[in-house]
Amino acid sequence: MRLVVLNGPNLNLLGQREPEVYGRSTLAEIEAAVRERAAALGATLEWVQSNHEGALVDAVQGLKGRADGAIVNAAALTHTSLALRDAFLAVQVPFVEVHLSNVFAREPARRHSLLADLAAGFVCGFGALGYTLALEGLVERLRHA
Amino acid sequence: MRLVVLNGPNLNLLGQREPEVYGRSTLAEIEAAVRERAAALGATLEWVQSNHEGALVDAVQGLKGRADGAIVNAAALTHTSLALRDAFLAVQVPFVEVHLSNVFAREPARRHSLLADLAAGFVCGFGALGYTLALEGLVERLRHA
Amino acid sequence: MRLVVLNGPNLNLLGQREPEVYGRSTLAEIEAAVRERAAALGATLEWVQSNHEGALVDAVQGLKGRADGAIVNAAALTHTSLALRDAFLAVQVPFVEVHLSNVFAREPARRHSLLADLAAGFVCGFGALGYTLALEGLVERLRHA
Amino acid sequence: MRLVVLNGPNLNLLGQREPEVYGRSTLAEIEAAVRERAAALGATLEWVQSNHEGALVDAVQGLKGRADGAIVNAAALTHTSLALRDAFLAVQVPFVEVHLSNVFAREPARRHSLLADLAAGFVCGFGALGYTLALEGLVERLRHA
Amino acid sequence: MRLVVLNGPNLNLLGQREPEVYGRSTLAEIEAAVRERAAALGATLEWVQSNHEGALVDAVQGLKGRADGAIVNAAALTHTSLALRDAFLAVQVPFVEVHLSNVFAREPARRHSLLADLAAGFVCGFGALGYTLALEGLVERLRHA
Amino acid sequence: MRLVVLNGPNLNLLGQREPEVYGRSTLAEIEAAVRERAAALGATLEWVQSNHEGALVDAVQGLKGRADGAIVNAAALTHTSLALRDAFLAVQVPFVEVHLSNVFAREPARRHSLLADLAAGFVCGFGALGYTLALEGLVERLRHA
Amino acid sequence: MRLVVLNGPNLNLLGQREPEVYGRSTLAEIEAAVRERAAALGATLEWVQSNHEGALVDAVQGLKGRADGAIVNAAALTHTSLALRDAFLAVQVPFVEVHLSNVFAREPARRHSLLADLAAGFVCGFGALGYTLALEGLVERLRHA
Amino acid sequence: MRLVVLNGPNLNLLGQREPEVYGRSTLAEIEAAVRERAAALGATLEWVQSNHEGALVDAVQGLKGRADGAIVNAAALTHTSLALRDAFLAVQVPFVEVHLSNVFAREPARRHSLLADLAAGFVCGFGALGYTLALEGLVERLRHA
Amino acid sequence: MRLVVLNGPNLNLLGQREPEVYGRSTLAEIEAAVRERAAALGATLEWVQSNHEGALVDAVQGLKGRADGAIVNAAALTHTSLALRDAFLAVQVPFVEVHLSNVFAREPARRHSLLADLAAGFVCGFGALGYTLALEGLVERLRHA
Amino acid sequence: MRLVVLNGPNLNLLGQREPEVYGRSTLAEIEAAVRERAAALGATLEWVQSNHEGALVDAVQGLKGRADGAIVNAAALTHTSLALRDAFLAVQVPFVEVHLSNVFAREPARRHSLLADLAAGFVCGFGALGYTLALEGLVERLRHA
Amino acid sequence: MRLVVLNGPNLNLLGQREPEVYGRSTLAEIEAAVRERAAALGATLEWVQSNHEGALVDAVQGLKGRADGAIVNAAALTHTSLALRDAFLAVQVPFVEVHLSNVFAREPARRHSLLADLAAGFVCGFGALGYTLALEGLVERLRHA
Amino acid sequence: MRLVVLNGPNLNLLGQREPEVYGRSTLAEIEAAVRERAAALGATLEWVQSNHEGALVDAVQGLKGRADGAIVNAAALTHTSLALRDAFLAVQVPFVEVHLSNVFAREPARRHSLLADLAAGFVCGFGALGYTLALEGLVERLRHA
Repeated sequence: MRLVVLNGPNLNLLGQREPEVYGRSTLAEIEAAVRERAAALGATLEWVQSNHEGALVDAVQGLKGRADGAIVNAAALTHTSLALRDAFLAVQVPFVEVHLSNVFAREPARRHSLLADLAAGFVCGFGALGYTLALEGLVERLRHA
Repeated sequence: MRLVVLNGPNLNLLGQREPEVYGRSTLAEIEAAVRERAAALGATLEWVQSNHEGALVDAVQGLKGRADGAIVNAAALTHTSLALRDAFLAVQVPFVEVHLSNVFAREPARRHSLLADLAAGFVCGFGALGYTLALEGLVERLRHA
Repeated sequence: MRLVVLNGPNLNLLGQREPEVYGRSTLAEIEAAVRERAAALGATLEWVQSNHEGALVDAVQGLKGRADGAIVNAAALTHTSLALRDAFLAVQVPFVEVHLSNVFAREPARRHSLLADLAAGFVCGFGALGYTLALEGLVERLRHA
Repeated sequence: MRLVVLNGPNLNLLGQREPEVYGRSTLAEIEAAVRERAAALGATLEWVQSNHEGALVDAVQGLKGRADGAIVNAAALTHTSLALRDAFLAVQVPFVEVHLSNVFAREPARRHSLLADLAAGFVCGFGALGYTLALEGLVERLRHA
Repeated sequence: MRLVVLNGPNLNLLGQREPEVYGRSTLAEIEAAVRERAAALGATLEWVQSNHEGALVDAVQGLKGRADGAIVNAAALTHTSLALRDAFLAVQVPFVEVHLSNVFAREPARRHSLLADLAAGFVCGFGALGYTLALEGLVERLRHA
Repeated sequence: MRLVVLNGPNLNLLGQREPEVYGRSTLAEIEAAVRERAAALGATLEWVQSNHEGALVDAVQGLKGRADGAIVNAAALTHTSLALRDAFLAVQVPFVEVHLSNVFAREPARRHSLLADLAAGFVCGFGALGYTLALEGLVERLRHA
Repeated sequence: MRLVVLNGPNLNLLGQREPEVYGRSTLAEIEAAVRERAAALGATLEWVQSNHEGALVDAVQGLKGRADGAIVNAAALTHTSLALRDAFLAVQVPFVEVHLSNVFAREPARRHSLLADLAAGFVCGFGALGYTLALEGLVERLRHA
Repeated sequence: MRLVVLNGPNLNLLGQREPEVYGRSTLAEIEAAVRERAAALGATLEWVQSNHEGALVDAVQGLKGRADGAIVNAAALTHTSLALRDAFLAVQVPFVEVHLSNVFAREPARRHSLLADLAAGFVCGFGALGYTLALEGLVERLRHA
Repeated sequence: MRLVVLNGPNLNLLGQREPEVYGRSTLAEIEAAVRERAAALGATLEWVQSNHEGALVDAVQGLKGRADGAIVNAAALTHTSLALRDAFLAVQVPFVEVHLSNVFAREPARRHSLLADLAAGFVCGFGALGYTLALEGLVERLRHA
Repeated sequence: MRLVVLNGPNLNLLGQREPEVYGRSTLAEIEAAVRERAAALGATLEWVQSNHEGALVDAVQGLKGRADGAIVNAAALTHTSLALRDAFLAVQVPFVEVHLSNVFAREPARRHSLLADLAAGFVCGFGALGYTLALEGLVERLRHA
Repeated sequence: MRLVVLNGPNLNLLGQREPEVYGRSTLAEIEAAVRERAAALGATLEWVQSNHEGALVDAVQGLKGRADGAIVNAAALTHTSLALRDAFLAVQVPFVEVHLSNVFAREPARRHSLLADLAAGFVCGFGALGYTLALEGLVERLRHA
Repeated sequence: MRLVVLNGPNLNLLGQREPEVYGRSTLAEIEAAVRERAAALGATLEWVQSNHEGALVDAVQGLKGRADGAIVNAAALTHTSLALRDAFLAVQVPFVEVHLSNVFAREPARRHSLLADLAAGFVCGFGALGYTLALEGLVERLRHA
């Protein structure tokens, strides 16, 4: 099972970026934890982070034929990038959407996702742990699809 | 660790109710799976389902001092019951909100939850599996709180 | 042909409740007239009234396998109860929605029904007579379905 | 008792026009059924159909002193013709509004009627049968007015 | 003079429920203070609290012929229960609406009351004292009606 | 000076149509009064009334080269006919908009005119007298243009 | 017949204030024209202009018992002063609302008047001439009231 | 205890201004009743009424250091004066907002107060009596602050 | 291949009607150009223009069985006529929508078409040339359908 | 170069009014700083503050012929006074709008200025310093106009 | 005549991306067809596709002085990129907007283009053919400009 | 004091891009003027311009530890880039927002900034001069922070 984790703008600053909102784990620490769990579940993992919408669109396009599923935290682009949405519509690879913070407890603009209705599942509010839950949910989904 | 799972109106019909939306597992089957996982995690579990808003408000009030956390699928009341919200505000017991279907892919009225901003985490779209993910997330949260 | 008539909150006060809006017939008088017409059409009739949303959800759930169709005047819950809507979605029993008053001539909140798009037919504004028209329409529908 | 049935634009195409929405009866078949029922109820019937708003306004103005009541299916004009509304306000002849389809289950623009709040009753969703129910309701209304 | 005080969901938790919003008096303490003042004003008092909308609708229906007026704090149901509104419209017993907190300083959903336009008076923001002011206002109103 | 007065749907019923709103003068009486005043001001007058939008569009198109100005009471079409607006944009003949009733004191749909921003002047609320005021204003305008 | 003309903020600058919108007549010239016409119609005229909302509220209050009618151009306060509206509601003296420019052809904020629904008539778009038309309409109204 | 009562535009006309809405007491009669009650409670009272927003802003600024609390009926300015709101924010003197009529039963524009969220309490719908209730509530508040 | 071109209200004035918006070609000139191109493409052409909505509805109904496709410039009726929309839904003849001006650069009311979502293609902003482009697109579509 | 600085309601309380929002400088201190800088730039300065909208309208009218430019902090009137806007439209004197606080970080009502689109420049969020920046910007503008 | 065709995100996937919406032609096939037609019309063609908004902004900036016109299918960026709009405003090169699908028959977010009001023409719904129609329209426009 | 000036898409075209809106200075000329003033104030300056959102996000992330403050003209991205906002939230470096044109006098979409509420100050409408005012304000702020 080949999986890709896509991380959007500013997630490279995790740990120092508004820690009261996003927690104190760095993206590298989250990656390590998810890789460990993926290995235990028998899945390989590619890890991507970019501040550039176009690079993320390229990455989603690249999923086709190279990945069985994806975990996506598109960060700010979740709410503004119709291009990312179109990319997922085009490749039709199952993905789970994850957010560190509880988006329902934040500004209204953060409550509307352009991706969520396409997702195989949605997890938010658990901090770094959410990535692992998303991974488990995605693997389970792919196994029974 | 004492946990309670609260299920709202019509969830007693799971398995026969719009299976293309909610899946084919019955509520009893979900309960069995969650109880098994809870036992493995060392948590006791109380399981509640009601079609009556008032009964669910009573149940939430009953969490105080009797439970360490809750998993809540308030079903239709998620979107209409301010009384349930007030009950959670009053008891201040941590809870995770879970939905079987992907609420973002449904009618607009299903996209606004009166509880979600109070939740310690939110999971949707994974079907029956979502309850187990919610359980894991909640237990992890309570252990590190 | 087994039919059920479901009446929502405050309809037990008919005759004394704002008679200029709802007319002077009591609910018992309406029931008698509908029962007489149902007998003539060869249908049995169960008659329910409750002020409790949960009790009405229970009643809708009870239609499954016990009734061929229903006539529903959900009164105030027409406009606020997503749980009733979900119950009808779950049992998939054909029903006709009826209102005594002309809901289009009333406050905006009364003009939006959470049930009407699911109904096999909709009748309003005829006062007590509307129940009989709904009955005729429902029986005809069930005979030709 | 002298009654008029007014039919708006495109109803002359019934039977061939989107039969999955409007049913397979032609307008002539509906007319025959309503005439039969009207005769049984001792009412004479005038039957009008036009694709021209102005012609329908003229017809409504013609009700005054020549008809005791009307059944109106204004079709698309239901939602756009303030002139028809004004004509009914001017002549003050009681009428029942009828629609073949369940307007609540259609596009939002079809859910707002410019006539309904003036109507003595409203029937929709029963297909061709709705005209007969409207007739019965109207006759009953006129007899007890 | 026979009066009834109706309290909605979660008011049984007063004193422990968000004391910075609702104050530290328990509902029993408020009841005692209001009873004392009612006795001084020569009025008898029935005191009701329920978390169930249906039970409160029943209670409002019960006012008819058994009470001269009511003081109502419908809590969360203030903003969601059209059934309670209909019950008050049906019984036509004068009532004063009271809220402990200043609803104008809270979330938008708390600023719209489904009852307030029917009330003989409205008091909010004074905490427990509001019940006594409502009582005085109501008694004065009934004496001069 | 050649003037045309254009009257929209249902104005032929003036005097009998909601006299508490539109007054008791018939359209013929208004025409007589306006003709008298026009003669005194040295203007010829053509008088048009139609219930048909298309006929009124034709009439507006006919203004070009045959009239110096117009007085327009488009009645219900004021609020719904973009085609009338386009006709006035095409012929560029100055006109004054007049309404018998005070449109600001009526339903919201009556408060938005599709013609008014194109008009050389606007008069409403004076009943039949409004036509004469509109005439005086128009003549004055044309004299000093 | 005693009449008062009330002019709101900045009308003292007429003639120099945006002449392409408001015309080139000064307020004194308009006053002279209206006084001349009022004299011809046998009416006395009081003329008021103020930039102060409070002063205009005082002036409206002063109408009571001292004037038979008023002509009001409240300028910017037309759209913002609920206090002026309340003053007219309190004194119940008939008035005509007048505007120099065609308010329907201007910014949206200028299209909503807080006074117009209370007015006995409304005239706009005729420039300085509008005051005279308003005067004639008002006098006619008062003569036949 | 030094208190000030502030009354906004048109309240000087009480008794003659729409008595079916505002009651038949004059402002002087209300003042007398409130003064009597204030004396009984050991409070001195300054009474202000103005039709000028600026004068009321001056009066609110004057509360600082000269009054312990205020009762405010800002009338129409309640809904339009951000300047009054800013004045209260600046002086930070506790005040109770009072309205004679039930603002919830009136036009939408009357339902939104620019002051209410700052108030120590809110009373409406009791007519003249409301001032006395507001006084009692304010005194109680100041005693226990 | 039999085609019909339908032109709505005021298009008969092309060339003289707001030439800066609609260009200087007359409708006859456009017709000639389109006929020439249609002949070259081997298609026969019927050309219709009317200011009457009802006549256009009749014309659309007449397409059934008599035309293979249509080019439609419904002018003002594009934005207001639900009856035209229903006619196209009824006959199910493929059509291309064309506008002379760029509707996106005009008033908001011109940006919403009641027909466009039904169209086989949409062309605007090219002036008279747009009809020829629409013709080519339609012919191509019909050839490959 | 003759300049005027206009200050709106409650700015006379600066230093004591919500210092966490508006800073601790008094208006006199700001005036001193601006006067010093104006002198350095060779400009004379008139300083106005009023709590009365009418007085400020008078002051804006007075700019004409007596000032080359203005700096305006209309405080609460920024958001509510169409009369002030009209005054600036009338006198056509260039002005810069200034606010002490960052209006974009405050309540929505504070984010919409009725003056800003007329201004030669806009400065906010710099506290007292903003007046000096506005002065520099204005002087520069006037020098190069 | 030098032309550029600009294609936005995900158009590189044409043929495999939702073929029921976008058709089965690949972008290379469309390019070939457009190049052929351009050659026939005597125009040179540059073909651009990018998933990066910034790259497309650069490309639009590059049109200046190097192209006579452009054909633009900005895909998802049509609805979200104000930067692309600004680039076209800056270079002032005429362009035609084209979409493969009928944007009026899709989600609301796809119906609003940030470019369309600047375009010399707009074509949608014809699939791959739309590019050729756009090309013809653009060439014709440039020839007669 | 180390400062960075960030310029968004299309600002590289300044001088030739809509000069009636943005003025005739090139970005290089503005840079020169700001550098001169910065040197006078003892601050070093880094100057950045990009048409790529991702590159600007990278630049904002790079401020951390390398700059004491920033001046930001995000151009079109001001209104669409939540990613830029998140970057500023992450690095917490004080910045001043500047726009050449008066955004309040432009299209509504230009009036809402996603950055402004985070800014230490906001300057617009002064053209190129605005950068210098922003610089002065920022330096002053940093000196007294």
